Amino acid sequence: MSWEETSESVCQIACALALVGDRWTLLIMREISMGVKRFEDLQMQTGMSSHLLALRLKRMEEDGLLVRRPYRERPPRFEYDSTRKGQELDAVLLALRNWGLHWEVSSLGDTPSISMTDKASGGNIDGNWQIPQSGRPFTFNDVEIALHPTFVAERQTRTDAFHAKKLRKATRTKR
Amino acid sequence: MSWEETSESVCQIACALALVGDRWTLLIMREISMGVKRFEDLQMQTGMSSHLLALRLKRMEEDGLLVRRPYRERPPRFEYDSTRKGQELDAVLLALRNWGLHWEVSSLGDTPSISMTDKASGGNIDGNWQIPQSGRPFTFNDVEIALHPTFVAERQTRTDAFHAKKLRKATRTKR
Repeated sequence: MSWEETSESVCQIACALALVGDRWTLLIMREISMGVKRFEDLQMQTGMSSHLLALRLKRMEEDGLLVRRPYRERPPRFEYDSTRKGQELDAVLLALRNWGLHWEVSSLGDTPSISMTDKASGGNIDGNWQIPQSGRPFTFNDVEIALHPTFVAERQTRTDAFHAKKLRKATRTKR
Repeated sequence: MSWEETSESVCQIACALALVGDRWTLLIMREISMGVKRFEDLQMQTGMSSHLLALRLKRMEEDGLLVRRPYRERPPRFEYDSTRKGQELDAVLLALRNWGLHWEVSSLGDTPSISMTDKASGGNIDGNWQIPQSGRPFTFNDVEIALHPTFVAERQTRTDAFHAKKLRKATRTKR
């Protein structure tokens, strides 16, 4: 059975996996849910090649997870925003995060890289299984997020490395 | 940034994705949570090649998601069971399923391929955002599952196709 056949299964888990079942799609959704929406910034923080990122964003647009908007005309530059369908994948990201916290999969142990405060109750969503029960699907809009300083530093390192690489490329081209 | 570097992020989402962030791992976990534990049955229902499946199961064992047990000596045959760490990925599967139901990603629309009844409350978990709040992470152990007849038929088709292919192979070898 090829992957295409998997997506033709009647099982919602299989079909959902066909849409989002790889690391990149959910990593892109994490960035967009955090407010990172521009192509170059997405490239920076996911570490994807521009070719792969462009292909994936196109696919995600076709699947109804994202919409694309120009934010500059010359040269043309785009930003991406999640649709409601895309936003509701936040529940999957939250389940992954809670699992990762409980099993301490990152070097931060049980300290969240992204701490979340429920806007409605003011409570911290830092446990392993707490999911706000608002009567509608969870999205990052329901929470205030704050990044752990180590995660902020990690992201800055990525930004710096990206710009340094770009500069080296530009310098080489000029020679 | 390569995938290996992603898994070195401090972000629990990124690290969790490094462990489970592809279609196959979660599809295997779905099968195991449904009680399908033998190598050949896993191969049948995921459609993975035996080589790929063996590699993936080994990796999942190393990551502490599964344990392997022999169930026959000659020829040696193995079955797999989820650890508690692996079981708790059921919350991710449930989030994916609920998202898939809400957005009707399968041909069954908003009818679940796997309907779930909460053992504690007797309630049906067929909504889009209901996750049993038992005070501990959700696992499939908390629910009784029932497969939709279309999903049962789909699985039988896979089983039949697998055996037919094996028989053709055996016949060719004999000639």
